[in-house]
Amino acid sequence: MLNENRFFPVEATTRAIAQRLFHEIEALPLICPHGHTDPSWFSGNAPFADPAQLLIVPDHYIVRMMVSQGIPHSAMGVPTLDGAAFEMDSRKIWRLFAENYTLFRSTPVRHWMDYTLENQFGIEAPLRPEIADAAYDQISEKLNQEAYRPRALYEAFNIEVLATTDSCLDDLAHHKSIAESSWSGRVVPTYRPDAVTNPDISGFVENIERFGEITGENTATWDGLLRAHQKRRQDFIKAGATATDHGHPSATTCDLTQQACRDLYAEILAQTATEDQKEMFRGQMLTEMARLSVEDGLVMQIHPGSDRNHSPHVFKRYGSDKGFDIPKRVNFVEALKPLLNILGHEKNLSIILFTLDESTYARELAPLAAAYPCLKLGPAWWFSDSPDGMMRYRNLTTETAGYYNTVGFNDDTRAFPSIPARHDMARRVDCAFLATQVAEHRLLEDEAVEVAIDLAYRLAKRTYGYEDLA
Amino acid sequence: MLNENRFFPVEATTRAIAQRLFHEIEALPLICPHGHTDPSWFSGNAPFADPAQLLIVPDHYIVRMMVSQGIPHSAMGVPTLDGAAFEMDSRKIWRLFAENYTLFRSTPVRHWMDYTLENQFGIEAPLRPEIADAAYDQISEKLNQEAYRPRALYEAFNIEVLATTDSCLDDLAHHKSIAESSWSGRVVPTYRPDAVTNPDISGFVENIERFGEITGENTATWDGLLRAHQKRRQDFIKAGATATDHGHPSATTCDLTQQACRDLYAEILAQTATEDQKEMFRGQMLTEMARLSVEDGLVMQIHPGSDRNHSPHVFKRYGSDKGFDIPKRVNFVEALKPLLNILGHEKNLSIILFTLDESTYARELAPLAAAYPCLKLGPAWWFSDSPDGMMRYRNLTTETAGYYNTVGFNDDTRAFPSIPARHDMARRVDCAFLATQVAEHRLLEDEAVEVAIDLAYRLAKRTYGYEDLA
Amino acid sequence: MLNENRFFPVEATTRAIAQRLFHEIEALPLICPHGHTDPSWFSGNAPFADPAQLLIVPDHYIVRMMVSQGIPHSAMGVPTLDGAAFEMDSRKIWRLFAENYTLFRSTPVRHWMDYTLENQFGIEAPLRPEIADAAYDQISEKLNQEAYRPRALYEAFNIEVLATTDSCLDDLAHHKSIAESSWSGRVVPTYRPDAVTNPDISGFVENIERFGEITGENTATWDGLLRAHQKRRQDFIKAGATATDHGHPSATTCDLTQQACRDLYAEILAQTATEDQKEMFRGQMLTEMARLSVEDGLVMQIHPGSDRNHSPHVFKRYGSDKGFDIPKRVNFVEALKPLLNILGHEKNLSIILFTLDESTYARELAPLAAAYPCLKLGPAWWFSDSPDGMMRYRNLTTETAGYYNTVGFNDDTRAFPSIPARHDMARRVDCAFLATQVAEHRLLEDEAVEVAIDLAYRLAKRTYGYEDLA
Repeated sequence: MLNENRFFPVEATTRAIAQRLFHEIEALPLICPHGHTDPSWFSGNAPFADPAQLLIVPDHYIVRMMVSQGIPHSAMGVPTLDGAAFEMDSRKIWRLFAENYTLFRSTPVRHWMDYTLENQFGIEAPLRPEIADAAYDQISEKLNQEAYRPRALYEAFNIEVLATTDSCLDDLAHHKSIAESSWSGRVVPTYRPDAVTNPDISGFVENIERFGEITGENTATWDGLLRAHQKRRQDFIKAGATATDHGHPSATTCDLTQQACRDLYAEILAQTATEDQKEMFRGQMLTEMARLSVEDGLVMQIHPGSDRNHSPHVFKRYGSDKGFDIPKRVNFVEALKPLLNILGHEKNLSIILFTLDESTYARELAPLAAAYPCLKLGPAWWFSDSPDGMMRYRNLTTETAGYYNTVGFNDDTRAFPSIPARHDMARRVDCAFLATQVAEHRLLEDEAVEVAIDLAYRLAKRTYGYEDLA
Repeated sequence: MLNENRFFPVEATTRAIAQRLFHEIEALPLICPHGHTDPSWFSGNAPFADPAQLLIVPDHYIVRMMVSQGIPHSAMGVPTLDGAAFEMDSRKIWRLFAENYTLFRSTPVRHWMDYTLENQFGIEAPLRPEIADAAYDQISEKLNQEAYRPRALYEAFNIEVLATTDSCLDDLAHHKSIAESSWSGRVVPTYRPDAVTNPDISGFVENIERFGEITGENTATWDGLLRAHQKRRQDFIKAGATATDHGHPSATTCDLTQQACRDLYAEILAQTATEDQKEMFRGQMLTEMARLSVEDGLVMQIHPGSDRNHSPHVFKRYGSDKGFDIPKRVNFVEALKPLLNILGHEKNLSIILFTLDESTYARELAPLAAAYPCLKLGPAWWFSDSPDGMMRYRNLTTETAGYYNTVGFNDDTRAFPSIPARHDMARRVDCAFLATQVAEHRLLEDEAVEVAIDLAYRLAKRTYGYEDLA
Repeated sequence: MLNENRFFPVEATTRAIAQRLFHEIEALPLICPHGHTDPSWFSGNAPFADPAQLLIVPDHYIVRMMVSQGIPHSAMGVPTLDGAAFEMDSRKIWRLFAENYTLFRSTPVRHWMDYTLENQFGIEAPLRPEIADAAYDQISEKLNQEAYRPRALYEAFNIEVLATTDSCLDDLAHHKSIAESSWSGRVVPTYRPDAVTNPDISGFVENIERFGEITGENTATWDGLLRAHQKRRQDFIKAGATATDHGHPSATTCDLTQQACRDLYAEILAQTATEDQKEMFRGQMLTEMARLSVEDGLVMQIHPGSDRNHSPHVFKRYGSDKGFDIPKRVNFVEALKPLLNILGHEKNLSIILFTLDESTYARELAPLAAAYPCLKLGPAWWFSDSPDGMMRYRNLTTETAGYYNTVGFNDDTRAFPSIPARHDMARRVDCAFLATQVAEHRLLEDEAVEVAIDLAYRLAKRTYGYEDLA
């Protein structure tokens, strides 16, 4: 069901250029520097459970769309926190999805799923109720095969490196086990300290205590907290990490005096801090993380501007990451200034900015990245990780920031089987963009080939410090 | 003068797909669930006055463009409130419009007017000074014919249902008269309570009193006010209404305690309320309207973010709706949260959101509508109700919200003769969008046909509860 | 290396229309109503120094991109303010640029430079390290020729009028010298009073004193300050000025009472003003400038929304205009209201609005310009002065504001040799836009020809009052 020209421009000259460009990059290995796959899959290498638990239930893109049409999370198999019933029959969940597959028309879920069903599971027609059971059986059967275990898929997908995202409280046991195994796959952690940088996260105070235990530092003090981060980042580096990730509600950074930091942290720990103080704490922690990156070389990723758990009803009943995170405006120009004022020209600092607020692409992000040496633009993120979204990203950033202040593609997914589909889409859309540049005589075709390879492979490898890879 | 391929993509394959899709929907009846036609036209069925009074003077799109080039409202025949002279010679107004028709190049007014002149009045060349008088005579002559009376036009336009927008203080006499007549046309009211929900509207306190008289409730109390709405909405429902409409300056909603509501309302009525309190009152009223919608099933339309009467000069001399309403930023994510917190997952609630702030399409509206079951996206509104505007709407919302969290087209006009032109443009642009999806292998053509029919006809019918229609 | 179809749509029918339209306007003279060339070039008519000092070092588009990749300003030859070393070897700077020319792929710098190298200097392949020295020699050789002196280039470029931007403290000596010379070129000043309207500009108080000396008015008083402006604007008008220019951080305008103005000015001069008061002063000065424009007819240009000198490091070491000005959000609807309330309908007022915040195009600027007779939209500015940027500008403004509330193109550059390249690009992109309108049957081709000529030539001439030109 996948047409070989999907996502390419229709005009014949341009399409032919896109085909030629894509031909040059189609077979390049996948670099996956930011994502949310589970490292236990690769340490344990157990078979995946079933089609619904693998492809439907954990995918908040899918669940949210079904919910938007009045189908409750519970009917989609999302476990309830309050003990209420939820669908446990994976075949029923799969059928419900098939019945509602029309909802996803022209959305990236549709494209990823079609690709995954055809290329990973040999299903050759778009999902519909009539073939739901047969498709379920076919996928189930394959998931029991050796070739569908996580490590085999990793290899079949031609992945060169895969970064997971890991709480700074994580013991990294799975990563250690993978490293110690005879398997040659490279699965590395990413240092995600939100659990101890964002006072609004539930269990924050306990997290801080736990962080002290793990690191042997007195995290009840500001200075101890910083030392704990310094140490813990080293643990991650030893386990292969090359990057950190920060998912704050805004891009706020701060540059407080040491004394102000200590006083602020005391209020935070005492849980007497105001909303403004909590925001200031998060902002100061971003600056501290940048300082530590100057020291230890970890690339810093900032993913701001999601209003997490917008629906208290959903949060209470089902918890976080259930499709009710809504983007909001971000002001990068003001928010990043305190950090940039002190570290903006550091040679050893690399900060990758992501946004859900596309109005900042041309106005803020491209001009910032095309000036400060430490700043780079992450690829189109989340809701914008889609053909039109990526095209808008290139359209709105390229003329100011060029290609070389961007960092290639991130698949950013927990849906492991969809990783090839996501890279395929991104590569095709970049070829479509470049083909139009060539056809309109804005770029020579040999240059476009070079850029296509950079965007598909070399930029991610270079930016995230995977250069030592074969 | 109308080319059969207008608004379609130029590339031959894509254009052919667009033609095929349009062929499937071209003859579908018009569903007009939101507009500003005058119900008295359909009850009285009198001939329209003359070309200028019908097509020019009441059209704020036209008047504003002329004013922007230094032609005063008065020269365009807009009546002055201060007794100053204004042009009363309709032929002169028409000529002035013809002389300035070049101002409208590439704007929707041009497309609507060309369509209306050719298809409704048989004029086959774009308006220009040389043919202004002949065109005026030809239209005038037709307006005197039986076939150009409102009911005949309604039928000729193949309208299935037409909703007007009516103050909650309106006596609905014209709607009753239409319903009691032998005419089979369906013209229904829409409940618009701004006169008693927005304290900034002139005559607010008198409106509240009048609202009490109409409903027999003591609207001097908060509880009485709510009961008055409850009753009045029933009157509208009896007259055929299926929806409400709310034109607040922002999308603010509130969730105050009963006591806080009573206290706030007392301040509002005493006219001692601050700007913040007035905003809070409007926000609370939106929430109350949503609560009543859960009870009585009226679909709720929110049209926020217009800075009404931006020019005090124009407002003072000519009044409201004279082309000086300017869009402003809207923050839906924060503003709707209080309402969504309590009612966001109600099964019997349907809220249609409109915006003039296109930066919210991808960032806020599509993610909200693709999560909350009660939320849907209204079509591209007002300044965005144009070929490029509609294309941006689809480009920015579809990949997140799909097609089925949108509600089809609204012509939103008081320019009755232009209604077919507006639906024609919207249908063509949707076919252009869908054709590109098909040509780029992002959607199958048989799916695109289904979606085209949904967008042109079925979604509006279903969303606004006209399903009982033939 | 320049393809004759560059920037035109690829589809054959549309491209052919674009070619025909461009053929009609290609040879029209250049109107340059807003830019930053140095009038001393045209008074002294000395040869330009060398390729790097002419084309690289002063161009903040180029320098910022190099800096963003870790190359310090000093290596690009930007003089340091603190006495630190900086590259003085122009050939080395040129080579460094050539080595990094790939950074500019798909950016306007690439297009402008290719055009300039080919058409002005006869270099026929894109710059790359291997040809850097030969290109340097070829340009150097030409710069020594009589035909490459400023006046000869002005004529070769077919410029009809060129406006510079000049501080209100400037003595206009170069403009006087040009006017008194036998040379027929028209180089006129533009009144830029930021030095005495923006209290945040360094040396503000001294500027005010100097302003008093120049004008013979007591600028220590509010009334004297206004008289000084009134007089100084007359000096500029005598020197040929037809416009003013204002580069404030926001678009804020104010309408304070006379007494409030006097009190505010006293605080400003005493340097006791708060940030809010400084903003208010800037806002009041915009209103005063508009009042004076009503009197003396100078067209007013407002360029708001740049966060100047975002990096204190760069500002301290290299000064202003070094590529670290970052756009920020602007709210035109609220900010302009005080000015528009009193002057919005003045017949003799023309205010041209520019923005770096593209989210305001459709939401604010087009609706404002399509209503207020005094408002017009300036062309796509700075980072948006690029093929995709200009296309977005037309896409987002035309359907609301039409073509006749826009003012043609501004090259806005200090890179004199690139002026033809910039007009070429703008004319081509406008032809591309218009060709699509024609091909989609949204505009007739003979109308498109008229519009193309208006956008390329007539609108700028009319708006800036150059109508007396041949």
